[in-house]
Amino acid sequence: MATGDIGLIGLAVMGQNLILNMNDKGFTVVAYNRTVSKVDHFLANEAKGTKIQGAHSIQELASKLKRPRKIVLLVKAGSAVDDFIAQLVPHLEQGDIIIDGGNSHYPDSIRRAKELEAKGLLFVGSGVSGGEEGARHGPSLMPGGSPAAWPAIKEIFQKTSAQVNGDPCCDWVGETGSGHYVKMVHNGIEYGDMQLIAEAYDILKRGMGLSEDEIADIFLRWNKGVLDSFLIEITANILKFKDDDGEPVLAKILDKAGQKGTGKWTAIAALDSGTAVTLIGEAVFARCLSAIKDERMRASKVIAGPQKEPFKGDKKQFIDDLEQALYASKIISYTQGFMLMRETAQEMGWNLNYAGIAKMWRGGCIIKSVFLGDITAAYQKNPKLESLLFDDFFKKAVSTAQPGWRRINAQATLWGIPTPAFSTALAFFDGYRSEILPANIIQAQRDYFGAHTFRVLPGKENERFKAGEDIHVNWTGRGGNVSASTYST
Amino acid sequence: MATGDIGLIGLAVMGQNLILNMNDKGFTVVAYNRTVSKVDHFLANEAKGTKIQGAHSIQELASKLKRPRKIVLLVKAGSAVDDFIAQLVPHLEQGDIIIDGGNSHYPDSIRRAKELEAKGLLFVGSGVSGGEEGARHGPSLMPGGSPAAWPAIKEIFQKTSAQVNGDPCCDWVGETGSGHYVKMVHNGIEYGDMQLIAEAYDILKRGMGLSEDEIADIFLRWNKGVLDSFLIEITANILKFKDDDGEPVLAKILDKAGQKGTGKWTAIAALDSGTAVTLIGEAVFARCLSAIKDERMRASKVIAGPQKEPFKGDKKQFIDDLEQALYASKIISYTQGFMLMRETAQEMGWNLNYAGIAKMWRGGCIIKSVFLGDITAAYQKNPKLESLLFDDFFKKAVSTAQPGWRRINAQATLWGIPTPAFSTALAFFDGYRSEILPANIIQAQRDYFGAHTFRVLPGKENERFKAGEDIHVNWTGRGGNVSASTYST
Repeated sequence: MATGDIGLIGLAVMGQNLILNMNDKGFTVVAYNRTVSKVDHFLANEAKGTKIQGAHSIQELASKLKRPRKIVLLVKAGSAVDDFIAQLVPHLEQGDIIIDGGNSHYPDSIRRAKELEAKGLLFVGSGVSGGEEGARHGPSLMPGGSPAAWPAIKEIFQKTSAQVNGDPCCDWVGETGSGHYVKMVHNGIEYGDMQLIAEAYDILKRGMGLSEDEIADIFLRWNKGVLDSFLIEITANILKFKDDDGEPVLAKILDKAGQKGTGKWTAIAALDSGTAVTLIGEAVFARCLSAIKDERMRASKVIAGPQKEPFKGDKKQFIDDLEQALYASKIISYTQGFMLMRETAQEMGWNLNYAGIAKMWRGGCIIKSVFLGDITAAYQKNPKLESLLFDDFFKKAVSTAQPGWRRINAQATLWGIPTPAFSTALAFFDGYRSEILPANIIQAQRDYFGAHTFRVLPGKENERFKAGEDIHVNWTGRGGNVSASTYST
Repeated sequence: MATGDIGLIGLAVMGQNLILNMNDKGFTVVAYNRTVSKVDHFLANEAKGTKIQGAHSIQELASKLKRPRKIVLLVKAGSAVDDFIAQLVPHLEQGDIIIDGGNSHYPDSIRRAKELEAKGLLFVGSGVSGGEEGARHGPSLMPGGSPAAWPAIKEIFQKTSAQVNGDPCCDWVGETGSGHYVKMVHNGIEYGDMQLIAEAYDILKRGMGLSEDEIADIFLRWNKGVLDSFLIEITANILKFKDDDGEPVLAKILDKAGQKGTGKWTAIAALDSGTAVTLIGEAVFARCLSAIKDERMRASKVIAGPQKEPFKGDKKQFIDDLEQALYASKIISYTQGFMLMRETAQEMGWNLNYAGIAKMWRGGCIIKSVFLGDITAAYQKNPKLESLLFDDFFKKAVSTAQPGWRRINAQATLWGIPTPAFSTALAFFDGYRSEILPANIIQAQRDYFGAHTFRVLPGKENERFKAGEDIHVNWTGRGGNVSASTYST
């Protein structure tokens, strides 16, 4: 008789840890891996003495699971997911549930849900965040997909996930594709958070000339304030971590940041939806720039920066300013991320629960933080909140941070320390709160050279410039009055 | 007997003007349009008294053209291009040439070239830039595609294009897809140039409190120096252009910038190729932010910026600084654009002639400028130039510009005037010339939470950290030693 509560395919570190975690929570997990020897190794080692069962074939996996079967895939995003789904389908029955817990791109999840639902099966695309630690002790889980699957997996998922103040960091995200979409935005935000920390570190290191230990102490202090978060905490630990020779390991790490695509996907999704998610964009590009290390090394030999001047100001004030700059930039990044979800939900017809999303991210995942509790509160207070910057708490926070944030950005600019994320956050903030932006000149240029037309500014209407009309001006007296209708520059 | 040298489909403003231009250069053009009445209207009006012929059907168009037939499509990018190609093919013969002069996305051009070449036809995707004025009097033309087509269209294209010092702003770009790719990058750069001008205008207007007329005079002066270009020139004209009531038209234009997709494509291509083309990215996002005017208006009511202080410094120095900031940012934008072409050419196996591309852009197109002559010279001097910043001329230019550029960015930061493009350009510059970037902390974090591994910094190798190895550290003493192989956060 089948006794497995849930199956899991893929025994890399995340898969192994998630299995051990689900086992701890009292569920019987059946483990399978393409290279079957890994199953035996796992059972004989990490899983020794647990209720975890192994399967040596897809058929055996299916036979060991209670119905409706629930099978989690934790394999490399892309064709591997399709391959396993194709292998699984012949062994499944109506109502069985395939859950893709990998970092799949959301359009793939939409496609897979359609294909499986047509066969009477259910599909869930679930974001899983938290890295190996999170998987082991409680990740953030973001499931979305076939609605009928949720009641069947709810208990396992909510018990397996991290808990914050007794609340699980897992809830139903929404319709098909939304789970992986929200996870993608989570990852994009993670890219942003990491870049902000890197810039703060750079300012302290190259700008202030502080040692890794001194910087670690600053991060430890920040971790007791508004920045209290997993990433700040591990950054402090990293800064303190020494090699056998006593030198910080950090100082030995090559400064070429890798990426796995989800940050890039977020930036592309932002461009496609026309949402100004500038901070994640800059974070991704900063990794690209880091990657051309050899070219940078050659450039550093021939291109000089500004004369380096030792820091002369009030050190304590400056570090407090930096905390505020990091905090305010982070508020902007999350504001942008939630704007992106808002735009996409509208486009896709998803009903996203923004407070629920923030709640899922509060614990278990890489971006977990006290800050996300404040976002949860903001959306609980007003589920239709236009953006975080309209919430009283965040409005006040940014207002308080503003002077220090500007001082930091100005100082980094003069020092020649690159702060693409800090800078773009401030530029967005200043643009967002601008009733009038200089885009009028762009519209004028477009109409001048391409007859692209423009609209009149409210309050400036007259006989010639009427509200709601596409207006073309014959700027040069030479061009025709034909406006660009089918051809566009 | 067929007497037409070339056919053109699509009688919107660009199409009409290009026909008139080719007619002026002595070629017999046959005009066709889906709505046939437009053909008659064109012949009876704009084309009256010329050699231009009309066609009332695709068949008539084909019958009026000398062989090999050359037919230019200037229709809306997308399905309209495929529709016309499908209509044309039955009326064409081996060796006939279809030229898509619209703003097609380069992957579409690659597909179309393959499909047509399989039928014995030739396909050229050609960038056409210059707006209505350029089309009428000499555009920049960027043809790429089936190599056999080039000798057949060379004379018409090079005579029709703009000329700078007797050189045509048209040359063969390269292999299939490259014409539209280079045009796409051109358009992305155009987005960047326009955003930079908008930021300079904003600083002069909101920061310095100058009038449109005063700003126009500054642009006129700049147009005699390093910034000498079409966009600076038309900006001065726009600033001077008054409505009947004497108010500048610019002040009546709604500040919501439209976009047609090619800037976005460039930013997405940059993300896909992993190239830090940050300035175009910010320019596209700035348009997105401008577009949410209603939200900005609401935000402007509740979110306060810094206290506004009147400008107290040396006005002339500040305006000179601003010129340098705009110039240096522009150098960075073109540096990034050429880096993108370099990366993509490598990926696609294209042999791009960078000096030739800069030469094509020197005249006829929206971004035409003296500056592009300097880029041409840089790549002529060294066709393998790693980036513009390694060229002596540009290295010196940036070096001279640097102090003023930093002062402008710092001042705008303190004023609360958004300068996303100026800022990202400087951040890129400072990152590019950094031997060490803080990406080491990002790599440490990724290894900490996701076992993603890192490499050792050259010069820091030891027993534990070996060159060329993927290194994982057990940061917490708790996690396993399994590194992430198939699952990635």
